[in-house]
Amino acid sequence: MAKEKPGIPKGTRDFDPLEISRREHIFDTIREVYRLHGFRPIETPAMEHLSTLMGKYGEEGDRLIFRILNSGDFTSKADDEDWRDKNIARLSSQLSEKALRYDLTVPFARYVVQHQHNITFPFKRYQMQPVWRADRPQKGRYREFFQCDADVIGSDSLANEAEFIQIIDKVFTQLNVKVEILFNNRKILAGLAEHIGFADRMQDITLAIDKMDRIGLDNVNKELLERGLTMEAVEKLKPVLQLSGSNAEKIDVLTGMLASSPVGMKGVAEVREVLDILSVTPPHNLLKLDLCLARGLDYYTGAIIEVKSQDVPMGSICGGGRYDDLTGVFGLEGVSGVGISFGADRIYDVMQALDRFPDITGTFSQLLAVNFGPKERDYCLPALENLRSVGIQCEMYPEPARVKKQMQYADKNNIPFVLMAGEEEMKQSLFSLKDMRSGEQQRLMLEQISEILLKFIG
Amino acid sequence: MAKEKPGIPKGTRDFDPLEISRREHIFDTIREVYRLHGFRPIETPAMEHLSTLMGKYGEEGDRLIFRILNSGDFTSKADDEDWRDKNIARLSSQLSEKALRYDLTVPFARYVVQHQHNITFPFKRYQMQPVWRADRPQKGRYREFFQCDADVIGSDSLANEAEFIQIIDKVFTQLNVKVEILFNNRKILAGLAEHIGFADRMQDITLAIDKMDRIGLDNVNKELLERGLTMEAVEKLKPVLQLSGSNAEKIDVLTGMLASSPVGMKGVAEVREVLDILSVTPPHNLLKLDLCLARGLDYYTGAIIEVKSQDVPMGSICGGGRYDDLTGVFGLEGVSGVGISFGADRIYDVMQALDRFPDITGTFSQLLAVNFGPKERDYCLPALENLRSVGIQCEMYPEPARVKKQMQYADKNNIPFVLMAGEEEMKQSLFSLKDMRSGEQQRLMLEQISEILLKFIG
Repeated sequence: MAKEKPGIPKGTRDFDPLEISRREHIFDTIREVYRLHGFRPIETPAMEHLSTLMGKYGEEGDRLIFRILNSGDFTSKADDEDWRDKNIARLSSQLSEKALRYDLTVPFARYVVQHQHNITFPFKRYQMQPVWRADRPQKGRYREFFQCDADVIGSDSLANEAEFIQIIDKVFTQLNVKVEILFNNRKILAGLAEHIGFADRMQDITLAIDKMDRIGLDNVNKELLERGLTMEAVEKLKPVLQLSGSNAEKIDVLTGMLASSPVGMKGVAEVREVLDILSVTPPHNLLKLDLCLARGLDYYTGAIIEVKSQDVPMGSICGGGRYDDLTGVFGLEGVSGVGISFGADRIYDVMQALDRFPDITGTFSQLLAVNFGPKERDYCLPALENLRSVGIQCEMYPEPARVKKQMQYADKNNIPFVLMAGEEEMKQSLFSLKDMRSGEQQRLMLEQISEILLKFIG
Repeated sequence: MAKEKPGIPKGTRDFDPLEISRREHIFDTIREVYRLHGFRPIETPAMEHLSTLMGKYGEEGDRLIFRILNSGDFTSKADDEDWRDKNIARLSSQLSEKALRYDLTVPFARYVVQHQHNITFPFKRYQMQPVWRADRPQKGRYREFFQCDADVIGSDSLANEAEFIQIIDKVFTQLNVKVEILFNNRKILAGLAEHIGFADRMQDITLAIDKMDRIGLDNVNKELLERGLTMEAVEKLKPVLQLSGSNAEKIDVLTGMLASSPVGMKGVAEVREVLDILSVTPPHNLLKLDLCLARGLDYYTGAIIEVKSQDVPMGSICGGGRYDDLTGVFGLEGVSGVGISFGADRIYDVMQALDRFPDITGTFSQLLAVNFGPKERDYCLPALENLRSVGIQCEMYPEPARVKKQMQYADKNNIPFVLMAGEEEMKQSLFSLKDMRSGEQQRLMLEQISEILLKFIG
C-alpha cells in the first residue's frame, strides 16, 4: 500500500491532551451550571434526514450543510435528465438523503415534536455536541465545532429569560472571564419600526442596526436609507440608537416614545419584568439594554441576548433569545421557547488570550513509578493499585528504561510526583517519592505518599 | 413551508435524559479507570480524508464508510466517461473527498504519525467518540455508535497487556457486570499452524476456529477441510481446540506441543509473562486462556483479548490486542502498540438486561420550588441560589401554575424534594420541604434543607 502523508480536512482539528483538558474545563463548567439550574441532557444523531435540515437556515445555510452520499448505488435515485445536465441543485438531494447537523436548535425542535408524548413540559434541556458547516475556514471559524445549548420549551414565563441571564453570568464568573451581557427585545424593535412609520420594514431595520458595532452610526443610517427608509424616519430613529444611560433611564425614554405602540409597550414591559426578577439575585457582570442589538435570526420574537468579552475583541461568545414558534415547521404549533448557546471554541480563544486556564500539572497522571526491573515492578504494582483505589491517577513506566528517560517522560507529561523503590526501599517496606516541582525527595510509607497525593489533588 | 413528519435516519438514535444518565455512568466509569492508569485523552475530527480511511478495513469495510458529498459543484472533479457510465466505484471518490470515521484506531494511527514530533513515547492515549458505519441496522447494531478506546503505542513491554487486563477487570467490577476475560496470542496460533504443517494457512485457520463459539467443533473441522487442510492436520489440531483445564495446565500442554516452533514458544512465553505480572494484582473476573480465540483483524500480531458477559449472551463487549505495525501505512514504521476498545452500546444492553443501572432519582434536578406567584417566587429565588452555591441542583417552576401540575412535574422528572413557601413560611423565614418519596413534609430553615439535600446527594 502506498504511504500517505497524513493530514485532516481543512477547518477540522485534532485535540491533544492539553487542549482536551482545557476544553473539558469549559464544557464541565457550562454543564455543571446547566445542571445546577435543573436542565436535563439529550443527544441527537450527527446525521439528520436532509429534509429535516433544508430550508431552516436560509439559502446560504442550505449551501453550508454537509451532505452524506447515499450508500450503495447512489445513482439509483438520480433523475436521468438531471444526471445528463449535471443539475447540481436537484441532484444533490437525489444522491443524498442524510446530512450532518448544522446546529442543535433544529434537531431539538425535531426531537420535541417526535417525542412530544414522552416529554413533560416545560422541558428544560441542555445539549452539548459538535455541529458541522461547510463554511470557508478562517481564524475562529471551523467546519466542526461544539455548541452548548440550553432551552426551556413550553413556558411563556419571563422567569426563564431571567434564569438564562443568571446562568450566563454564573458560567463566565466561574470561568473568570469578565463579560458584558447585552440584551434587547424584538418587540421593542417592532415598536420602534412602528414609531418611525415603517412597521413593515422590521427586517430591513434590524439587519441594518445589527451592524452598528462594526460599521458605526453613519453607515447604519446610510444603509437604512438604501433600504428605503425616509430621511425623516432615520432622523427619528437616531436618538434611540445613541441612547445612553442606565437600563432604567433607557426604559423611561422608551416608555414615552413607544406609548402609542402596543407591541412596543409589551416589549418594554417584558424587559422591565426580567430586570425585576433579576433584582433579587443580581448578576456580577455588566447587564446592558442595547437597543442596537437585533440578532439576525428571524425566529426570535421576544428577548434577545448576546455576550461579549470585556477584555478580548472576539464578537459574540454566547447568544440566545425567545422564539414563539420553533416546532411549527414540524407540526407542533404554539409552543414557545427560549434558549441560549455558548460558543465553546470562541470562549476557548478568549481564555487562551487572557491566560485563564488552570495549570495542567497532575490533570492526568499524578504519579509515575520508575521501572527498575521485574522485582521492583512487582513491588510497586500493588502500591499503585492501592493509590488508585483512593482516586490517585498513577502509572508505572512500562519497561526498565534508563532512569533519565523515565524522568523525562514524567516531566514532558506534567506528572508532578515520581515513585522509586530499589533494594533499600524494598528492604524497609518504603518508597522514595520525588516532587518534580521542588526536586525534593523523601523516603516514605505508602500511606504517607497517599496523603501527600490526595492533598495535591485537593 | 410544508409540515414534515419528524424522524431520524435508520440505525441512529436520540437519547433522552434517562438514557444519557445511564450512558454517562458507563462512559464516566471507563474514563475514570483509564485516567487512574495514566491514560491521556485525544480527540480527532468526525471527518477524515477519504484516502485516510480507504483500504484499511478490507473491501467490506470500504463499502460501509459514509462518504461526504463535496461542497459546491460536486461534479467538477468527476471524470466525463465515469459520469456517463455511472461508474459508482470510481465516481464515489470523485464526488467525495471526506468521510466519517469508521473506528478510532485508524484516526489514531494517522494522529500519531502526523503529530509524532510532539508526542512523548510511550504514548498512553484514550479516546471516546462516536463512529459511523453504513451497516444494515439490527438489534445491537447501529449506524452511529460510541467506541471507548485506549492504546499504548511505542512500547513492547508485556506489562501493557497485563495493565489492559487489569483495566478491563476494574471497569466491569465497577459496573457490577460479571465477565469472562478471554485471551490468547497470535504467535501461539502461528505455532499451532506450524505444528499441524500448515504454517502458510494461518489466516484460514484463524477464520475457521474463530467461529467455534457459534458453529461448534464439527463445523469448524468441516470448514478447515474445505479451506484445504488435510484430515491429518485437522485431527492434530482437534485436541488443542478441546483443551480444558486451568491456564497453567494449558500452558504446559502447549509448551510440549510447540517445542519445535520458535514463534509458538515465543507466544507461550508471552502468555506466561502476562500471567506472571498479573499474579501480583489478580483480577476479580475469570481470566481464561482460550485457544479458539483468534479475532478476525489482520493487524494483531501478539496478545488478543475479548470480553463476554457471564450472564447475558451478547457477543464481545470489549476486545483488543497487540499490533506491531499500525502506523506503517502512514509512514512511521516499527512502532508497536497494544490497545482495547469497550463497546459502550453493548455494555448498555447487558446492564439493561441485568437491571444494573443506578436509580435516576435526583441525577438531574434535586429540588423543585413551587411557584405560588411573584412574591413567593422572589422569596425562593435567593434560597435556590444559596443551595446551588453548595452544589445542589434545583429549579423553580417557571410560572404560578396549579400546584397539582407543579407536583406532577416534580414526579415525572424524578425530582426527590419539593420546596414550598407561602404567607406563613415567609413570615417565619422558613420553608416547607416535602420528600417526594416518603410524602413527609417539614417546615425548616434553609440551612437544614441544605443539609438534608447534601446528605441525599451523598
